[in-house]
Amino acid sequence: LHGAAAAGARGTAALKKARLITAIKTPYLPNGKFDLESYDAMVENQITNGVEGLIVGGTTGEGQLMSWDEHVMLIAHTVNQFGRQIKVIGNTGSNSTREALHATEQGFAVGMDAALQINPYYGKTSMAGLREHFKAVIAEGPAIIYNVPSRTGQDIQDDVIMSIASHENFVGVKECTGNPRIDHYHSSGVVCWSGNDDEAHVGRHQHHAQGVISVTSNIIPGLFANLMQQRDDDMAASLHDLIAWLFCEPNPIPLNTALAMCGLVKPIFRLPYVPLSREQREHGAVLLRQVQEHIPGCKEVRVMEDDEFKLIYSSSY
Amino acid sequence: LHGAAAAGARGTAALKKARLITAIKTPYLPNGKFDLESYDAMVENQITNGVEGLIVGGTTGEGQLMSWDEHVMLIAHTVNQFGRQIKVIGNTGSNSTREALHATEQGFAVGMDAALQINPYYGKTSMAGLREHFKAVIAEGPAIIYNVPSRTGQDIQDDVIMSIASHENFVGVKECTGNPRIDHYHSSGVVCWSGNDDEAHVGRHQHHAQGVISVTSNIIPGLFANLMQQRDDDMAASLHDLIAWLFCEPNPIPLNTALAMCGLVKPIFRLPYVPLSREQREHGAVLLRQVQEHIPGCKEVRVMEDDEFKLIYSSSY
Amino acid sequence: LHGAAAAGARGTAALKKARLITAIKTPYLPNGKFDLESYDAMVENQITNGVEGLIVGGTTGEGQLMSWDEHVMLIAHTVNQFGRQIKVIGNTGSNSTREALHATEQGFAVGMDAALQINPYYGKTSMAGLREHFKAVIAEGPAIIYNVPSRTGQDIQDDVIMSIASHENFVGVKECTGNPRIDHYHSSGVVCWSGNDDEAHVGRHQHHAQGVISVTSNIIPGLFANLMQQRDDDMAASLHDLIAWLFCEPNPIPLNTALAMCGLVKPIFRLPYVPLSREQREHGAVLLRQVQEHIPGCKEVRVMEDDEFKLIYSSSY
Amino acid sequence: LHGAAAAGARGTAALKKARLITAIKTPYLPNGKFDLESYDAMVENQITNGVEGLIVGGTTGEGQLMSWDEHVMLIAHTVNQFGRQIKVIGNTGSNSTREALHATEQGFAVGMDAALQINPYYGKTSMAGLREHFKAVIAEGPAIIYNVPSRTGQDIQDDVIMSIASHENFVGVKECTGNPRIDHYHSSGVVCWSGNDDEAHVGRHQHHAQGVISVTSNIIPGLFANLMQQRDDDMAASLHDLIAWLFCEPNPIPLNTALAMCGLVKPIFRLPYVPLSREQREHGAVLLRQVQEHIPGCKEVRVMEDDEFKLIYSSSY
Repeated sequence: LHGAAAAGARGTAALKKARLITAIKTPYLPNGKFDLESYDAMVENQITNGVEGLIVGGTTGEGQLMSWDEHVMLIAHTVNQFGRQIKVIGNTGSNSTREALHATEQGFAVGMDAALQINPYYGKTSMAGLREHFKAVIAEGPAIIYNVPSRTGQDIQDDVIMSIASHENFVGVKECTGNPRIDHYHSSGVVCWSGNDDEAHVGRHQHHAQGVISVTSNIIPGLFANLMQQRDDDMAASLHDLIAWLFCEPNPIPLNTALAMCGLVKPIFRLPYVPLSREQREHGAVLLRQVQEHIPGCKEVRVMEDDEFKLIYSSSY
Repeated sequence: LHGAAAAGARGTAALKKARLITAIKTPYLPNGKFDLESYDAMVENQITNGVEGLIVGGTTGEGQLMSWDEHVMLIAHTVNQFGRQIKVIGNTGSNSTREALHATEQGFAVGMDAALQINPYYGKTSMAGLREHFKAVIAEGPAIIYNVPSRTGQDIQDDVIMSIASHENFVGVKECTGNPRIDHYHSSGVVCWSGNDDEAHVGRHQHHAQGVISVTSNIIPGLFANLMQQRDDDMAASLHDLIAWLFCEPNPIPLNTALAMCGLVKPIFRLPYVPLSREQREHGAVLLRQVQEHIPGCKEVRVMEDDEFKLIYSSSY
Repeated sequence: LHGAAAAGARGTAALKKARLITAIKTPYLPNGKFDLESYDAMVENQITNGVEGLIVGGTTGEGQLMSWDEHVMLIAHTVNQFGRQIKVIGNTGSNSTREALHATEQGFAVGMDAALQINPYYGKTSMAGLREHFKAVIAEGPAIIYNVPSRTGQDIQDDVIMSIASHENFVGVKECTGNPRIDHYHSSGVVCWSGNDDEAHVGRHQHHAQGVISVTSNIIPGLFANLMQQRDDDMAASLHDLIAWLFCEPNPIPLNTALAMCGLVKPIFRLPYVPLSREQREHGAVLLRQVQEHIPGCKEVRVMEDDEFKLIYSSSY
Repeated sequence: LHGAAAAGARGTAALKKARLITAIKTPYLPNGKFDLESYDAMVENQITNGVEGLIVGGTTGEGQLMSWDEHVMLIAHTVNQFGRQIKVIGNTGSNSTREALHATEQGFAVGMDAALQINPYYGKTSMAGLREHFKAVIAEGPAIIYNVPSRTGQDIQDDVIMSIASHENFVGVKECTGNPRIDHYHSSGVVCWSGNDDEAHVGRHQHHAQGVISVTSNIIPGLFANLMQQRDDDMAASLHDLIAWLFCEPNPIPLNTALAMCGLVKPIFRLPYVPLSREQREHGAVLLRQVQEHIPGCKEVRVMEDDEFKLIYSSSY
């Protein structure tokens, strides 16, 4: 077996068992390029603290702001540096089937374990078109399907999922529409990860979610790993306000701000993302300090000034 | 004045008077590339029948399925062939500010009159991020802002629009959230085009819409030009079923199918779009035949067979 | 006739009569992007002073340092702004047949009159490969073949030229191997432009060159137009030293330096080009001042300081 | 140490000891994309037979016919699959400094051990420009400089090499201008690999060449490894005709044809490369059969028919 096919055989079974997958943040240098040094340090902390997989260039990782060559490079870098320690899932989906096929093929060529495949957001298509799209991309290698209607403007209906669920490359669903649906999919044999950090603990222990694909675990990987391994209602409750704050603006705005305030990434934002307001930052600092000992690598949580953040608009040519 | 600035001075005033702008379809060759011959014939029919502007590579024109070099090439081609007869508005917006700036700059360099600027769909951002994004892109040249929450997953709030409405490059809004909002914007001096064909006649004559940015006018440009020039309730009512059919699946699926059935474009679909079902096509054929004399260049409306349509998945390498 | 075919019918006959074609310089802004304002001013001066055609993005115009989307954008911009006054020849050749076909197709789609087609430099190929390459690219539209072994490492042999000379899209040859060969091609009915400014006057009046594709005409278009229209040995002799200086380092290094010293472009160099040395600049200033009245738009020739030049290494991301 | 810097520390010393580096061929599928299955089989045979390093996407590997994302993907794939067994040198040089910097940075991000850096072919530059170019690219990580005036049209003069020879990232030179120059560089402490297979044995054993960067070793890796390890004049002489045939047309035309005739790659050519003529193939078959037992994986040498070869002109869109 070669390439995608081999990855399929290896990857599907193992990946289905993962409890905690992080949609990893992409940090930047002041020139707007990737800060691979900070990235590698973050990934090492993820591995050490029990994270089993990474979504590279997800919406959290701002794949939508990368050129495809940057995106595939980051997948390849991650595979090369960490592929023997953690599952690497490249967000190589697209609203253009052509682009999704190209990126997915390249992602598997550089060794990713699976692809995250989104339905065609913005442009949208018919359910017949959705089936055709997913049928095409899943043929490239193992795939997690990503359903997030609040971003895409379109729900992936159950029968679309079921039309590909028996494919050998089908891994499962990152489902953001709530735990009842995860329960429902589970009864049909479909593995689901919750895409909502605030529902993930309940989803995992009461609604048959396999685990979570998490944003919050960028910050507190160990706590989230524990929550996914065993039920801990008090711990879950104690994180409620932090999680709420992490979604007070569209993700990854609060996450990016938080990681900068924790000193884990440089305070660089690629537009259209901008940092949280001073007031929001002050509120977040209180919440982050409450869990500071669980934030790997964080020596201090600092409310930063507006002029410490740098916005990146464009490449110079 | 040079480039974008000159275009700004010329373009803003004239463009604000346009009643009918078509979100023009992009036709394809069997190899998946643009069919410029069919495109030029369609544009000539648009001009002859009273259309005053074109959105090139809009969601209808499948800009989301183009590479940027294809997209800018199509804008340049349109300017070069038809720029002295019709306003050319390039859909050079993007959910990536960097990409939007690059494409918009290129679009103005090749002579487009204005840009259509979308808010960052899918990735989304905060209202502060939206203001920053629009402030950046509108500096490049005249812009129509495009608000379509059903695609983007996020409404552009009024105060975001008002934060840029006084910019010299601000032209107006393509608004898809309904006529009351158009009325409201009008009271603040903001020009709006309806983005909903089914509401456009009422919007134009009863809610102060300047006109429409239309999908249907790809097929019946003359009728839509009449409806925008003067009120005709009977005519508007008679088109109700056709318009409803054109949106029975996400646009441009029905439009693409219709234009193929009318013999105006080759029956080629770039994935994730696929043709309407046979049953839907039969229904559409009845409706299209009722207005066939108003479809420029259409000699016959034919329900096609499934195997006459060709789906394009990807470039070969 | 459509697109390339129509361009072919129009363009071939007219273009074959051109005496003076300028390989136009591409000026840059401090951010490394094109300085279209300076470019447009230069082109206007070209037109006013008798230049009949432009090579856009030639080796002189640094097409080799452009991304293809920049390159096609510059062709489109030139067509849109000046296409009714001057012939626009896009240097859309490449050592990759795929890239040449793609760029050439795009160039014709945006209205260029002809393509400049180079043989595959660096990678090189067999004579059979050359014939296949040229057969493919010439099918896209009118083409001038460019033979410059000192750059490409490979001469285009006569029989390769003759294998395509009867194609309806064949315009002629930009020949850099000397006037005897131009004479020889002329006897076979092949139109040639000299690619060597120092030989062009003799070539035009004594060796049947149709004219010249010139670097020097960026600076003194009117004088070169005169030299191509009628024999003037004194004038030609008087320019000898200036032309020699313009090739004292690989073109366009001296040209770029000269135009900056004349105040016609900003002193920005994209690497690997760097300005001439201070000593070379001082020598050039003397020569340029001798013809200053013939340099359109030049108010002063100034020997600049090293630190006035800015080098562009890369885009920021 | 991180990324390029770490690679620098590790890679430079080890790489300088390599005797045999293969400029590996890139095989294609009938759709024009990379045939990674054939590629991996070839690389495994290289490793088994004593090859210590690979140039990925060199002129032999047709980097000049790749898009950069394909090129970096192939480097990443090679690192991921074989990086623990063989040195991976990406040909990330370019005649555009910007492109060279971008590709080189990406190559190191995905784990390559070193870059092959060419001087700016075709566009060329001054010696001052060369120094500036090499100074920029060598800062990215370990580099072998490639001097091949017959392709680039410009020799890299000794003092340009010496200007970067003391840089910590300087590895050595792939020198194609002959053994005397290799001897000369050796006396200055500069490591050289011969770039000419026909001179490599003499160069290695009589002129202080460190070894060879070879084309022929794609076919007979074990024999070339032996020749680089110890002097064997009879063996070297016996390969004379085969090596001469491998350069009877510009490389990699004969190599591509040979590997297809040996059944090791599919008979697919990306233009502008075309197969050798029938007569040339027949001659080659005789020579290849003489060493067939040393061609790993070759079960039969077959003179193929013209119509068995497929030429790839372009992507479909």
